[in-house]
Order: sequence, then C-alpha cells, then structure tokens
Amino acid sequence: MTLTGNLLIGQRSVTGNQPSIRAVDPTTNQPLEPAYPGACGEHVAEACALAWAAFDSYRETPLEQRATFLETIASEIEALGDTLIDRAVAESGLPKARIQGERGRTCTQLRTFARVVRDGEWLDVRVDNAQPERQPLPRADLRQRQVALGPVAVFGASNFPLAFSVAGGDTASALAAGCPVVVKAHGAHPGTSELVGRAVARAVQRCGLAEGVFSLLYGAGTAIGTALVSDPRIKAVGFTGSRSGGIALNQVAQTRPEPIPVYAEMSSINPVFVFDAALHNRGPALAQSFVASLTQGAGQFCTNPGLVIARQGAALQGFIEAAGEHLRQAPAQTMLTPGIFSAYEAGVADLAGNPNATSAASGQPAHGPNQGQAQLFTTHADAFLADPALQAEVFGAASLVVACASDEQVRQVAEHLEGQLTATLHLDEGDIEQARGLLPILERKAGRLLVNGWPTGVEVCDAMVHGGPFPATSDARSTSVGTAAILRFLRPVCYQDFPDALLPTALRQDNPLHVRRLLDGQREA
Amino acid sequence: MTLTGNLLIGQRSVTGNQPSIRAVDPTTNQPLEPAYPGACGEHVAEACALAWAAFDSYRETPLEQRATFLETIASEIEALGDTLIDRAVAESGLPKARIQGERGRTCTQLRTFARVVRDGEWLDVRVDNAQPERQPLPRADLRQRQVALGPVAVFGASNFPLAFSVAGGDTASALAAGCPVVVKAHGAHPGTSELVGRAVARAVQRCGLAEGVFSLLYGAGTAIGTALVSDPRIKAVGFTGSRSGGIALNQVAQTRPEPIPVYAEMSSINPVFVFDAALHNRGPALAQSFVASLTQGAGQFCTNPGLVIARQGAALQGFIEAAGEHLRQAPAQTMLTPGIFSAYEAGVADLAGNPNATSAASGQPAHGPNQGQAQLFTTHADAFLADPALQAEVFGAASLVVACASDEQVRQVAEHLEGQLTATLHLDEGDIEQARGLLPILERKAGRLLVNGWPTGVEVCDAMVHGGPFPATSDARSTSVGTAAILRFLRPVCYQDFPDALLPTALRQDNPLHVRRLLDGQREA
Repeated sequence: MTLTGNLLIGQRSVTGNQPSIRAVDPTTNQPLEPAYPGACGEHVAEACALAWAAFDSYRETPLEQRATFLETIASEIEALGDTLIDRAVAESGLPKARIQGERGRTCTQLRTFARVVRDGEWLDVRVDNAQPERQPLPRADLRQRQVALGPVAVFGASNFPLAFSVAGGDTASALAAGCPVVVKAHGAHPGTSELVGRAVARAVQRCGLAEGVFSLLYGAGTAIGTALVSDPRIKAVGFTGSRSGGIALNQVAQTRPEPIPVYAEMSSINPVFVFDAALHNRGPALAQSFVASLTQGAGQFCTNPGLVIARQGAALQGFIEAAGEHLRQAPAQTMLTPGIFSAYEAGVADLAGNPNATSAASGQPAHGPNQGQAQLFTTHADAFLADPALQAEVFGAASLVVACASDEQVRQVAEHLEGQLTATLHLDEGDIEQARGLLPILERKAGRLLVNGWPTGVEVCDAMVHGGPFPATSDARSTSVGTAAILRFLRPVCYQDFPDALLPTALRQDNPLHVRRLLDGQREA
Repeated sequence: MTLTGNLLIGQRSVTGNQPSIRAVDPTTNQPLEPAYPGACGEHVAEACALAWAAFDSYRETPLEQRATFLETIASEIEALGDTLIDRAVAESGLPKARIQGERGRTCTQLRTFARVVRDGEWLDVRVDNAQPERQPLPRADLRQRQVALGPVAVFGASNFPLAFSVAGGDTASALAAGCPVVVKAHGAHPGTSELVGRAVARAVQRCGLAEGVFSLLYGAGTAIGTALVSDPRIKAVGFTGSRSGGIALNQVAQTRPEPIPVYAEMSSINPVFVFDAALHNRGPALAQSFVASLTQGAGQFCTNPGLVIARQGAALQGFIEAAGEHLRQAPAQTMLTPGIFSAYEAGVADLAGNPNATSAASGQPAHGPNQGQAQLFTTHADAFLADPALQAEVFGAASLVVACASDEQVRQVAEHLEGQLTATLHLDEGDIEQARGLLPILERKAGRLLVNGWPTGVEVCDAMVHGGPFPATSDARSTSVGTAAILRFLRPVCYQDFPDALLPTALRQDNPLHVRRLLDGQREA
C-alpha cells in the first residue's frame, strides 16, 4: 500500500496545491515520505459541498446499514495490518504495543457505536398521543425524535494517532449520529491519517453510501481549519488539542453568521488529592503508582496527573521522596513531535524558573532527540493560590505537588482550580468524611471523579465522561469518549399531527424500530 | 398586596438605585405605579453571590423536596388571585381570559416539572460495573449521572408575562434541574414580575431552601443584563426575545473568560406550505383558519404564521381573496407595549414600501393607542428569493403570501429560509408525495413540523420542541417548552471506583431512587 500524499475529497484522491506538511520520525528527527500538499479553500468547499449533498440521505440510513458501516470501517482498519502499525509508530515515536492497543481501542469504539446505533435509544423517541376530547382545548398528536445536526468538522489529536484522530471518537460518534464528517488531519501523522482515511472511504463505498459522508484534508497552519469551521455547511466541530487552538476555533464558530456548537477538548492538569490516612498508610505505594501514571506514554495524556494536593508534613515529605526515587529511575521517552518536545521543555523551564516552585526530582536524562525527561516539582498552597502560572498545563511527564497547611487550604486549592477532565481522591477509611466535604467542589470542577486510581486510562463505555468545565472543554454538557458522545451531534424535532405515512420510521405508531419510547408520559419497558 | 417597586435579592427586598422602569398601560399609554428603580452592578453581584452560595445545597435537594418546591411556587402564584390577573392585564393589554389561561399554563408547567423531577429519568443514570477479571486490563466501576450546571440567568419575554417570564418555562426547567435562578424582569411588566417573584421567594422560604435559589432584578437598558451574563457565577442563560437582543447576549456569553451556554429563543416567521390539493379542496376554510391564527393575540406569538407558500394559480388567488375578506373584518388589537407597536408599524411600513410586496388586505383600523392593524401582503417567489428583507420577522399580525411558479420553486423557497421554530404543511391525500419531498429540507430548518394545523399553540408535554436552528434559537440542540427543557441545564459527571458511602444517592448500588438505569449496557425496565 503506497501512500499518495493526496487529499481525499469524497472518493476522489486529489493532490493539494498549498504548502506541504510532512511527518517527522521523532526518534531521529528525519522527515518521512511522502509530502502532503495542503488543501486550498476550494478543496474545503468541495468537501463541504459533498458532505452537504450526502447529509439528507446519510442521516436517514436504516440503523442496520449505519451500524454495518461503522463495523466495516473497523474491519478496513484492521485489514491494513502492520502497514498501519508501522507507519503510526514511525510518525509518533510511540511503542508498537501501544499503537496495537490503540488500534484495538479504535475498532472497539467503532463497534460500540454500531451497537448504540442499532439499539436506537439515542433517538429519544417521545410520543404524546392526541387527546381530541381534552378540555378546554384538544391536544394534538405530538412526536419527537433526534435528528443529526449536519456535517461535522473533526480535528484529530496528536497524542492518539488512531483513537482520537481520523476514525477516532469524534468521527465515530458523529457518523453514528448520522452526520457526514470532514476531517482535518493532524500534521504530526499524515501517513497514518491517509491510511485510515482511505479505509473509511472504502467502507463508504462498500456500504453504498454517498461519497460525501467522509473527506480528509491536510493543511499547514490554521487557514484550512478556519475555512472548514467557517463553511456554512458545517454544523458542528469536534476538536482535541491545545487550549489556544480550541479557543480560537470556538471564536471562529461563534462569530459565524450562524454560530455552531464546538466540542473542543483542551486543557487539564487532573488534580490528585491525597488524604491524610491514605498518605500515612500507603504513601510509598502511592508514590510508585503515581510515577507510573505520570510517566506513562511520556506523560502525553489529557488525563496525566499534573497536580498532587496534600497536607504538608512528614507523610507528604515521605511521599515526595519516594516519588522522587521512582522518578529518578524513569527513562526519558521520545515525545510525539519536536514541537511537543519543545513546548514541554519550555513548560518545565517555566516551572524551574518560578521562584515558588522547587524541583524535587528529575528522571533519567535524554539520550536521543525529542526525549522528555520526567520532572517533579513542589510548591506550597500559598504560592499556588497566588500564582496562576503554577496552574498552566505542561503537556508531558511533569507534575507539581502542592503542600497545604490545613484541610481548609486543601479546600481553597480545590476551589481555585480551573475546570478539569478529572479529579482524583486517594483515601482510606479515615478520610471518607474529609473527602465528602470536597466532593461538591470537585463535581463543579471536573467531568470524572476517581477514588484510589489514576486518571490515565479512559474506558469506552456508557458511563464514561471525558469532558468537563472550561477550559477542560468548551462544552461541559458533553463527553468525547463513551457512548453518550453520540448525543453531541443531535437535535430534537417534533412532528405534530402527522399522518403515519409521512412520519419517520422511528415515530410510527406501530414502533417498527422497537425503541423504548416515552409514551404518554411513561417510558416503555 | 401593595407593590413595592423593589428588587428581590434572595429574601431581601431592596430598593434599586439606578434609573427606573415603569409599566405603561398600552390601552391608554398611561404609566402605572410604582416605579421600579434599577439594580446596580453590586446588586447583580449580590444576587449572583447568593445564587452561588445556594447552588451546592440546592442541586442536591432530595427530588421530593425539589418537586414540592415547584408545586409550592404554583400554589403561591394561584394564591395571588385576581391581584395578579388584574396587574398582568393592565401591564400587557391582553384580555383577562387570556391571562387566566396563561396562569393555568404557567402553574401546569411548574407541576409538570415537579413530575419530571420526581421521575428522575433526567438523571440519565448509567452504571458500568467493575470487571476485575477482564483481559488484558480490568475495567473500573464507572457510574454517570447528570448534575446541575450552576446558577442560571433568565430573561423573560414581553409576550407571555407569566408563562415565559419570572416563573415561566426557563425558570421552571432551571429550578427543576437544580440550578438557582436570577431573573432580569422584562421592562414591560415589572408589577406582574414583582408579584410572581415574591410568590417564588415565599416558596423558597416555605420549603426551607437557601435564599439564593431565586432573585429578581430590574433595570432599564442593557447594562444589568450584560453584567448578569458576565458574572462568573452564572453558568447558563435562558432568554426569549428579539434576534438582536439574543445575539448580543450570546456574544457577551461567548467572550467571557469562561464561555457559557445561551438558550436564546429569538426570531421565526413560521412558514406555512399549502399544497395544491388542499388549496383546491378547502382553500376558503384554510383562509379562515389562517387568519384566525394570524390575528390571535394581535399576532404576538413567536409561532405566528408570518409566511404562506403555495403554487400560484386560481386556487391561491382564491385563498388570498378569502383570507383578505376575513382579515378586513379583523379588529385592530392593542399590542403589548408602545415599543412593540412602533416596531410592528415600522415592519409593516417596510413591507408596504417594498416594491416586491403587494398589500392584499388590511384589518380594521385602530381606534385607540397601540392598536395593531392586521396586514396581508403577497409576493412572488422570484422576489422572495432575491430579497432577504422579505424574510425579516414582523412581530404582530402581518403575513406574506409567496406565490411559486412550480414545485421546484416551492422547494427553493424552503431551502432559502432561515432557521425556524415551526414549519407547517397543509395537505390532502394527493399532496402526500410532494410533501414527503419537502420534509428533509424542513427537518433541517425547523424544530417543529405540523400537518394541517396552525403553529400558534405550544403544548407543554414530553414531545414538544419549541426551538430550532439559528436564528430561531441560539442552540438548536434544545427546547424551551416541554419536559426536555430540563436537559439544557445539566452536565454529566462520572464517578470511578467510588465506595458506596461516597456515591451520590442516584448512583448507589441498590438504586434507592428507583430510576431506570442503563446498567451494563442494558436499560432497566
């Protein structure tokens, strides 16, 4: 399978005419072939026109056909075999086993959404039958279902070249909802993107869908992304990336003549609260598992534990020393791109230069390009509360321990936090009441709360929330991981007094889709 | 019951210190006592601080207590008796029977949300039990519920001084979701607002809730509204009003350091498509029911039928003539405020002066101040497609009939429409296939589709959608009427590996709230 370096506009393979992007092997800093010339505004318009043309038919595909399409994408991705694995490893510097696991997760995610589509609960069918005899006025027959929002623009993440990229969670949930997707590939893994993009396009063809259901664009800089989000045919945006990037796209989307929803997953430092009894009883074990979570994948997870909060004292000191011991053993790891590595270095330098932060330990030094050295810093809550810079995300294996003078100061630090994807509590029996007091704050701050675990590791399931208040995401009402992600791309439509012959299948009186309806105020079994 | 002219900041009655608003009886143009001095920025901050202080406790009120609170508001409103009715009539110029009906609707709405709260389905409880033996990695225990977004700012509408105002749909659904509410009263009915606001405050006290659950502010101009939406403790906005007002508030909300959701219901002309067979078979009857819907309440409904689309020909000509006959009998009606009357006059003058629009009929002339004269205009689809001004909402009893040369032009007009609250189809058996062809377009354009009815009249029920694509609303993913309105003010939170003792009641293993959970992928009966 030869990479073409071409855009995919529906089923057409088109060579871009703008400045190229090119992947770099971060382990060697060597550029990888081929170059990917960027799309121009006309390419964006063509992809959006095709998506728009596909929308009305795609959103009404029978559920079985749409589910099969999602499963076919998974099969086509698996059929790429080691071609995909090898390219993703080369473009990301991530270990082969990790990429294999991520491929499994990506395909499981697609198949999970196939199950969700078939089940039909997302249609949220509500039927209020007519009451012609009601006094003082009769009630009309009213029926509601959810319909797809429209074509969705998806911006893949650097750190999951499969699971949060071309056929990742945003694409899978948008396609599941009935929305055509136009992907702007991440510049760090264009070859992986092309392979997966062509797998999706093959699935479109095999399933007999309109070609505009999927397109894939490349582009250096921000022009193509801006053009895509500005296109009037795009009706929602999925994005995983930096805070500045997410905020910029949101601004574009909100200042369009017709504003549209943006689901941007941006920035989180994932505070971990270690309570007294837990710290006292098992500080060294916690230190070990903390460093394992912190350094996993060179710390390049949105849910990396970048902040540890505990009461000061000998137990915390012991925890810091034990964590330092483990951290000093941690090998430097190749980061995803030279840009991410530089940003990590700059973030670490900022902390190192901050008079309020003290270095507690550094990991093994780098022995190759783009290798991030793990870092542990400490500070005091007084300083943390006074200095917003200490709350900035450093994407990579760096974390800051905040020592608090009192339970009240732990509470103040919690209240001082920005919105987060996760917040974690380490507690033993004796900590339960103190933890209970913190929960109302943390529920306001984060989308997922954990007890006695580590936030890295995001399960694809019904109950997952990978989201949270700003700036963790641009829309706390949603999750980008798990089956509830489909709800982001839907809107309700009500049908009043429709003859059965004109009703959408989901709303017909005999319930041919066998969905559990809210029928005259009662949910069907 | 004496009106005080005071702000309600929690349980405190406070005299404002900014320029006053004062209601005007639109039937006489006479100002009504008392004056309502406006709030200043500090009053806004105090109300928001109280709302914030109330939030953590209010959002965790037991469902029964919260439902009782909503029912108590309804009882307190009813207990106001004719004091409320008389004041609302005086401030709005609406007939007494209409205000009595609206009070019934308002109280039914509150009691409906009480039922929704008790039922608990809105919690959307999802439980994925731990799978400690799963390979290659165990699965944690993951549970999701919905929590309230935070304090909500509500801006009441002029045209429903009860049902879309201080204790209207936005307030009822936000309180149902667990959000404290700060209302900015509409300047047209401050006395009605005070009476209802004090009823809500009494319910807060009777139910033993934190006083910040509800506050009521007055203010001339836009400063107080802007301050309210800008306050960092406000986490969502409900608004019913003009397009310019909604867009301005949305801009304020999106450019805050932390952007927040805005549910603004703004502008809709509610297109009505009359198909050939229906027009031929029962044109005169349709003309009669059309004029009845158009002129109801002086046309001051968001769902007023401001546009009629049909194929040109003798049948349409007959419809226009019959509608003209009825319209010429329609008495002029007092509009809500001098401002709304002037805006209506200006909108009608714009249409009258538009070379592409022809006056078909005018209603009875005014015989008192602020009386709107019903108006019917006609145009051709060629002109309609070329002139965006013909699509501007004229709030009041004015409508425009668009004659189309062909079915294809009907389709073009449909595609040319902006987003709408409703779209209506009048059809007979022979029209079914043509209507079917139009549905995909109308589903993209409107939140509610009707067959053989008129869009005025919005049922409070499970299946209602009072919403739609921009500019009908600022967020098509929602409805402001009906039980699904509660979903606007919620966000999901996931709890991972929580001990039962720390879980919120809704998520405990023994399901003490008896909600239908999504349990390990299966919805419970």
